[in-house]
Amino acid sequence: GTVRAAAALAERYGADPQRARVAALLHDCAKLNGRSILEQAREEGVPVSPEDERSPGLVHAEVGEVYARRDYGVTDPAVLAAIRCHTAGRLDMTVLDKIIYLADMIEPGRAYAGVERLRQAAREEPLDDALRLGVIQNIELVREKGARLHPVTLDLLKQLQTKEAGH
Amino acid sequence: GTVRAAAALAERYGADPQRARVAALLHDCAKLNGRSILEQAREEGVPVSPEDERSPGLVHAEVGEVYARRDYGVTDPAVLAAIRCHTAGRLDMTVLDKIIYLADMIEPGRAYAGVERLRQAAREEPLDDALRLGVIQNIELVREKGARLHPVTLDLLKQLQTKEAGH
Repeated sequence: GTVRAAAALAERYGADPQRARVAALLHDCAKLNGRSILEQAREEGVPVSPEDERSPGLVHAEVGEVYARRDYGVTDPAVLAAIRCHTAGRLDMTVLDKIIYLADMIEPGRAYAGVERLRQAAREEPLDDALRLGVIQNIELVREKGARLHPVTLDLLKQLQTKEAGH
Repeated sequence: GTVRAAAALAERYGADPQRARVAALLHDCAKLNGRSILEQAREEGVPVSPEDERSPGLVHAEVGEVYARRDYGVTDPAVLAAIRCHTAGRLDMTVLDKIIYLADMIEPGRAYAGVERLRQAAREEPLDDALRLGVIQNIELVREKGARLHPVTLDLLKQLQTKEAGH
């Protein structure tokens, strides 16, 4: 589902569809083996904070980058970066980063209040507008789950809102 | 499931686990988009015989090879070959080919009479013995479904049985 969504977004927003497909296919590769994500993070030397212990959702993207490079032979830094930031986001996201972030949030398997609005934005609005909506939606979902929000997510939202104000 | 099975088989039978993971991840990539496999085959110039019309199961592996190369940027001929022959097999299969063929037949999602016996063979027996059992099992499954058996599958079985007799 995420591969299809990413390929469609790549076409719409002018990114390389091959990179988008590979990043989408591998974005959750740290979830493939069914093992505890914290155990995998420790094994791979990915730093685990006390907050991660309570809310390990963010760590899978960092472990995924390690696996994509080592276990699947991905060498393209743009693909690796998109995998790494697909959950928390980051400042100065590339078009590919934004596409993977959004594709993961709108793929057909996702069901949450607001997903249809985000799908529509990803079809009709400029990429940064859809992304801003996605980030706000994501913050809401994280709060609902009582999970931890990565500080960079708020920095990203601030950056996107500053850009919007500058239009 | 197939990725995990392929990685385990690669470790057991001494193949490159990275190649095995990539081939396993992509072996069914022609099924990702939910479109008719015959339509995709025609679009990609993959020959479709009247038998394929009645039984399109074999064509998805050939279309998958096309997609892996073009849509996912796979250039490794060994990986592409393993994707291409994962359903029908071929003569003189490489270790990687055999691993992907078997991984697809024993992955945790598979349930058919005989799957446990094949899983055991893939854990305990030489690769060609496990493969021979897999091919025989596959022929039986194809007959049960009333689907078409690719002629090369019988050639492969003959080759494996000749090898066995030569031990």
